Order: sequence, then C-alpha cells, then structure tokens
Amino acid sequence: MFKQKKKAVVLLSGGIDSTTCMAVAASETDEIYALSFDYGQKHSAELEFARFNAENFGATVHRILKLDNIFFQNSALTNKDIAVPKYSPYSAGIPATYVPARNTVFLSYALSWAETVRAEAIYIGVNSIDYSGYPDCRPEFISAFEKMANLAVKEAVEGRISIKIKTPLISMTKAEIIRKGKELGIDYSKTISCYNPSEGRACGCCDSCIIRKKGFEKSGFADETIYV
Amino acid sequence: MFKQKKKAVVLLSGGIDSTTCMAVAASETDEIYALSFDYGQKHSAELEFARFNAENFGATVHRILKLDNIFFQNSALTNKDIAVPKYSPYSAGIPATYVPARNTVFLSYALSWAETVRAEAIYIGVNSIDYSGYPDCRPEFISAFEKMANLAVKEAVEGRISIKIKTPLISMTKAEIIRKGKELGIDYSKTISCYNPSEGRACGCCDSCIIRKKGFEKSGFADETIYV
Repeated sequence: MFKQKKKAVVLLSGGIDSTTCMAVAASETDEIYALSFDYGQKHSAELEFARFNAENFGATVHRILKLDNIFFQNSALTNKDIAVPKYSPYSAGIPATYVPARNTVFLSYALSWAETVRAEAIYIGVNSIDYSGYPDCRPEFISAFEKMANLAVKEAVEGRISIKIKTPLISMTKAEIIRKGKELGIDYSKTISCYNPSEGRACGCCDSCIIRKKGFEKSGFADETIYV
Repeated sequence: MFKQKKKAVVLLSGGIDSTTCMAVAASETDEIYALSFDYGQKHSAELEFARFNAENFGATVHRILKLDNIFFQNSALTNKDIAVPKYSPYSAGIPATYVPARNTVFLSYALSWAETVRAEAIYIGVNSIDYSGYPDCRPEFISAFEKMANLAVKEAVEGRISIKIKTPLISMTKAEIIRKGKELGIDYSKTISCYNPSEGRACGCCDSCIIRKKGFEKSGFADETIYV
C-alpha cells in the first residue's frame, strides 16, 4: 500500500537550537523543506552554516529568502547603531536583541510553504529555558500561532492537512539540546550562535555566546565553538 | 494635557475594500502607516492606486514592500500558467485565486511595523459577506491572529500596547461598503478590484469584478470602474 510521505518545513538559522531541531526533524520525517532568512542580521555568517547543515541532514530543498522588512531594523541584531549588549546575569526583561515580530513573520512564510507542498509539520527550534527571553519563543505564543494557522489556510480549512508547529527543544536545557544533537551526529563547530561575530567567529561575550558556553560545560561535551 | 496620538497601520491594496478601510481608519486615527505589497500579483496596477489613496487620505508614511515569497506562486493571482477563472454563480469552495497564507504574511509585517511605531491598531479591509471565500478573511481567523499577536510582541507582552486587528468592513455588503466610501469622499475610479486587468483597466468578468459590479448596482451609486 502507498504510504504518504511525511513532510516538514524546518526553520533553520545556523545556531545550536535550529540545527538540533533540523536533526530531530530529519529523524522523524521523510522530506525536509529547510527555510532560512537573510534579514540584515549582523550574524549573517549563520547562513553558510545553515546551508551546510541543510545539505548534511538531507533536506529536499533549502531556501534562503531575502526579507525586505525594514521594521526589523529596530534591533541590536540588525542595526549598526545599536550595540549588541554583553551578557549580564542581572539584566531583566526582553533584551535589545529582540526583533519585532520576527518569529511571527518567519512562521508565516513557513506556513505559506507548508500549505504549498502539503506539509503538516513546521519545526522551529525555540526554547524557553536557556534563552534570551523573547516573547515569541514561549509555548503560549506557539500554541496561539498553531490555532491561527489552521484557520488561515485553505488546505487546513478544507480538511486535507492539519498544521502542527513542532518545538522539540522547547522544554530542554541547553545542555540537553547539545547532548541530543551529539547523539544525532551534529558537528557544532559547523554552527554559530553569536549575535555579533567577527569573520564567522563567535565573540564569546554576548548573551547567546554565554548561554552556549554554559550549555557545553554542563553537557559533558567539549565546546566545539570557534571563538575570536 | 498631552494627548497620546492614535496610530494605526493600514493594509492597503488599491481595491474597493482596502481603500474604504483606509478612509475609515483615517477618520478614526491621528497617524496612518499605510502598507502595500508587491508580491508578483498580475494586478500590480493596484499599487499605483494604493499610492494615490495613501496620499489622498493623509498617510504619514506609505511603504510598498517587495516580497521574495516564492510560495505565493501557487495561485491564479500570481502564476501566469494558472488562468484567473471567470465568475460562476455555481462555483463552490475556495477559488484558484487563493494565495497561500497571504493575509497571515501581510498581517505579520503589519504587526512588525505596529510594534516599531507603537501603533495599537492594524486595519485590514477583509469582508466575509461579498467575498471570494478565502479562509483568511473570516472573523475566526482575524480573532485568532489578534490573540497570537498580543503574545508575540514585546510591546504588548510588557503591557505598553494592546494590538487590535480592526476590520470595519467585515460584516458589510459590498453595496454598504461603497455607500460608506462615498460618504468618506472616495473616488472609486481611483481603485481597482480586478484580478486580471489589462493596462490598469478591469476585465469585468472575474469573481472580483462581478462582486464589485453588483455592489455598485445595489449601492445606488454609478459604477465608476474603468473597464477594458
């Protein structure tokens, strides 16, 4: 009997989380449609790693879309006039690296692609344990997006697919994510998490670098990151 | 006492509905941020009218973003190999002019802009009475998007704004929309609804043209449309 192929759209940035999420998706799915964005991020070095990992984990297609989203400019991640803050254990609230509605825009494009290829799953490597405090990484956001998605698209409304937003890492610590990734064969030297890299090397002192560094310490694996 | 200015992002395509929605928004708001998209639509003539009406109704800024969204290609509105169907009173279901997740993507960009300028309202001219049956025009979709939006963005989550998706036309017939627009001073010859225009003139036989034509008949106003 003909078995329907399981298809998934995977949001892939080139960091630890999305790369591990990609590896998990590849272990659960027949066909992967990997999606990355060039939105003027200072850390666009990540796109080379995204390309490497999409191929490495056998994505059927990998697309890098260029976003003409000038509204994303109001962030330390994209705006050269706003410095990427150094990590501080005392900082509270949502940091300057927050990008307005970024995951909403990314997931909307993923939804558009998912409907086009009739994929039922959209994977996103959000994590709400060892993370920067972005609101669009929390389970309540993901759940609200999933509800909206199933009311938005023809294929779902007419009952041919049911969209699931899959977040395999959402409740894992960074150390657990790294252990999972090593189990699935990830070479983390081929990923970058840094918000402010120089020539593809991590700064070692932004939020994202510190969270990553501590994750490696706790994981029991050697830190494969290439620092400046 | 200093009164906070009321700001709104308005999705403006250049058709009857979004132009009327724009006029309503302008009558209720101090500052308008008008947003249009160039996504490869066959009816890109609408963007000229969008430009005219944004200026005419005093938008503070009007942006036309170019979307690199190849997933939108699976539609009669964008794909030259899929013909725009002629109107049929017997056709059922969601038509070939449906664009995958279009309003979700448009609203996501609007949300990104709304947060950036701290606008509380996003206006969209969706209508679920005289419309083409698109799922992302229905009240249940809009309501789900609004819930998601308030969980997605920093300004809302930290309590500085509460995003409202405003749909002033959602329960109006096309005739009622036209009457409202005339009351607010719209020149409908400066709008276009056609899915398949030639040199900026309406075909007169697609879904959208027929719905518009009937709307004028019932409204009591002369049809200002310029047909081929």
